[in-house]
Amino acid sequence: MNVFSHPEFDNHEQVCFLTDPKTGLKAIVAVHNSSRGPALGGCRMYPYASDEEALRDVLRLSKGMTYKSALANLDLGGGKSVIIGDPRQHKTEELMEAMGRCLEQLGGRYIAAEDSGTSVPDLKVMGRCTTQVAGVSTHIGFDGKPSDGDPSPATAYGTFVGLKAAVQHKLGRTDLTGLKVAIQGIGNVGYRLARHLHEAGAQLWVYDIHQDQMDRAVEEFGATPVSAEEILTLPVDVVAPCALGAVLNDTSIPQLQAKVVAGAANNQLERPDHDALLMQHGILYAPDFVINAGGIIDVFHGRTGYEPEKVRAHVETIGDTLSEIFTRSDRDSRPTGIIANELAEERFDFVPSQQDGSLAKAG
Amino acid sequence: MNVFSHPEFDNHEQVCFLTDPKTGLKAIVAVHNSSRGPALGGCRMYPYASDEEALRDVLRLSKGMTYKSALANLDLGGGKSVIIGDPRQHKTEELMEAMGRCLEQLGGRYIAAEDSGTSVPDLKVMGRCTTQVAGVSTHIGFDGKPSDGDPSPATAYGTFVGLKAAVQHKLGRTDLTGLKVAIQGIGNVGYRLARHLHEAGAQLWVYDIHQDQMDRAVEEFGATPVSAEEILTLPVDVVAPCALGAVLNDTSIPQLQAKVVAGAANNQLERPDHDALLMQHGILYAPDFVINAGGIIDVFHGRTGYEPEKVRAHVETIGDTLSEIFTRSDRDSRPTGIIANELAEERFDFVPSQQDGSLAKAG
Repeated sequence: MNVFSHPEFDNHEQVCFLTDPKTGLKAIVAVHNSSRGPALGGCRMYPYASDEEALRDVLRLSKGMTYKSALANLDLGGGKSVIIGDPRQHKTEELMEAMGRCLEQLGGRYIAAEDSGTSVPDLKVMGRCTTQVAGVSTHIGFDGKPSDGDPSPATAYGTFVGLKAAVQHKLGRTDLTGLKVAIQGIGNVGYRLARHLHEAGAQLWVYDIHQDQMDRAVEEFGATPVSAEEILTLPVDVVAPCALGAVLNDTSIPQLQAKVVAGAANNQLERPDHDALLMQHGILYAPDFVINAGGIIDVFHGRTGYEPEKVRAHVETIGDTLSEIFTRSDRDSRPTGIIANELAEERFDFVPSQQDGSLAKAG
Repeated sequence: MNVFSHPEFDNHEQVCFLTDPKTGLKAIVAVHNSSRGPALGGCRMYPYASDEEALRDVLRLSKGMTYKSALANLDLGGGKSVIIGDPRQHKTEELMEAMGRCLEQLGGRYIAAEDSGTSVPDLKVMGRCTTQVAGVSTHIGFDGKPSDGDPSPATAYGTFVGLKAAVQHKLGRTDLTGLKVAIQGIGNVGYRLARHLHEAGAQLWVYDIHQDQMDRAVEEFGATPVSAEEILTLPVDVVAPCALGAVLNDTSIPQLQAKVVAGAANNQLERPDHDALLMQHGILYAPDFVINAGGIIDVFHGRTGYEPEKVRAHVETIGDTLSEIFTRSDRDSRPTGIIANELAEERFDFVPSQQDGSLAKAG
């Protein structure tokens, strides 16, 4: 396992291995790029099988945050942290406090938010020892409702705005009445997206691994429940993946009947080049890290002084950014994922990966 | 290459891999332990052949600084940094400034000082971008002479004090008149040690790879020049290694005629257990990281308000610390190196290395 020469290193500014021997804490904090501002990103807790696996995950996720925040026009860089351990077995207040102390001592270049394996209460425990946590403020949210910092409502609203932009671009319609949408996963974000769509007049198909969540969508939104096998391949206008990653792959893409893919799930493409396969099939793909940025926009404003109207307007810029990506994609006949990456790279201090310019003999 | 499970990891609090893509900077900063205070240690620049080699070096050196500073009764932890690159080819002001920016962003837990491959002027360039550099203040030194921050005079004086403590303990004499001392290496530190010894009436033998330095010692101190092969094995009272590391080894130790080894060189023992071999041969060894701490004492005071008399008194405590180590060593019939480590571990927040107490499955 190398660090500087790791295949996913990609000019990371800082990769810190941190321990606290008393609590057994082992964590890695990665700051990919801080040219736009401090690196805000989730703090994930997971029982990684090796240092190597933890490093690969944090590097990949950290870089993704640089691109996401740049495209969301946030004064934030990209970073991420991982705590090595099983959240169900090893998560204690002492451990979270130790992580907080470590972050405090890193000097402010990384700000933690909740992620897989950590929750708002965990972040609040960390916050006893550091100011470097986000998403823990209570305030009136962008939608006028009280918020404890949970970014799901903003993620759902941003996804709704982005979905509308995709529908307008691909299908030439601004009125969603009767629009057919299949939503894969109706948990925190998917459920809220479903409500926005229902209120706009759309017709919904839903699948979720939890029956009670399906029942709720059927009851409240008149949605049609379908099986896991059917949800992606229905004859609908839009598919909205809001659960698992890697659902867009060699198997699923040729079976899609929808002309638009626009959902909130992370890492929807199994491989980066699956955006090209979607384009070949005439399907407009709204890149996940663009359309699901409502959450980080919300969290950012929670740190800098939350003004509900301003946050709502900021989340709505996701639609403009996607429209720009779709237009460039059509103009250049290149996939939307690549276009989104390039647009992001125009917005931060991007240095292409290279071996030549480096001093290091390290290999 | 693992980090958390690296054989030299030894509960390091923090190991940060840092880059600056524009200048090509690649550096590792290691903070072993900061329970006594911020981790002060040298910033080394060296053309390491691999990430692995750089990591091993920085971990080993960083831990050593924790022990050194604890035994010198400094409110400092232990840390070290390495820049991967050839100082003669790659050292530029831009690179040093980039390193300064990286240190500034680490939040103050590590403070850099000069080391192999870096000099006071380099540290001053770093200091344009960070307050986290030491050994760059000009003041009146502990010896009443103007100082530009060079710690060599304090290192030499501390070594002289420590040598006297060893002679008193082993040979029962406080008057050095006629004491026979062989000094290996009479550069910055060795030359100043030679002067202290000469002024105290000692009789000197010297070797150095540079003929002009030998000539100077012959002329100024009436020293006897000898060859590289002879210097360690002369029939003298004391051998003072002040140049290379690893000079005390399976080959040299059985040939020593001196009863005391007390010099300023780093890492004099080829293996940690060579202190036991010295004891078996009836030779009193003044552990290098105890006797050569004058430099870090001087640098520490340069950051906190330099009062010459106070610094001199602090450097002189090296003699007391060594006397305590020698007494414990006699009492327990255990080598001085081990005793010194244990004494250090009483003085910082020491946690034994272990796998069991850790959450991590990382291997």
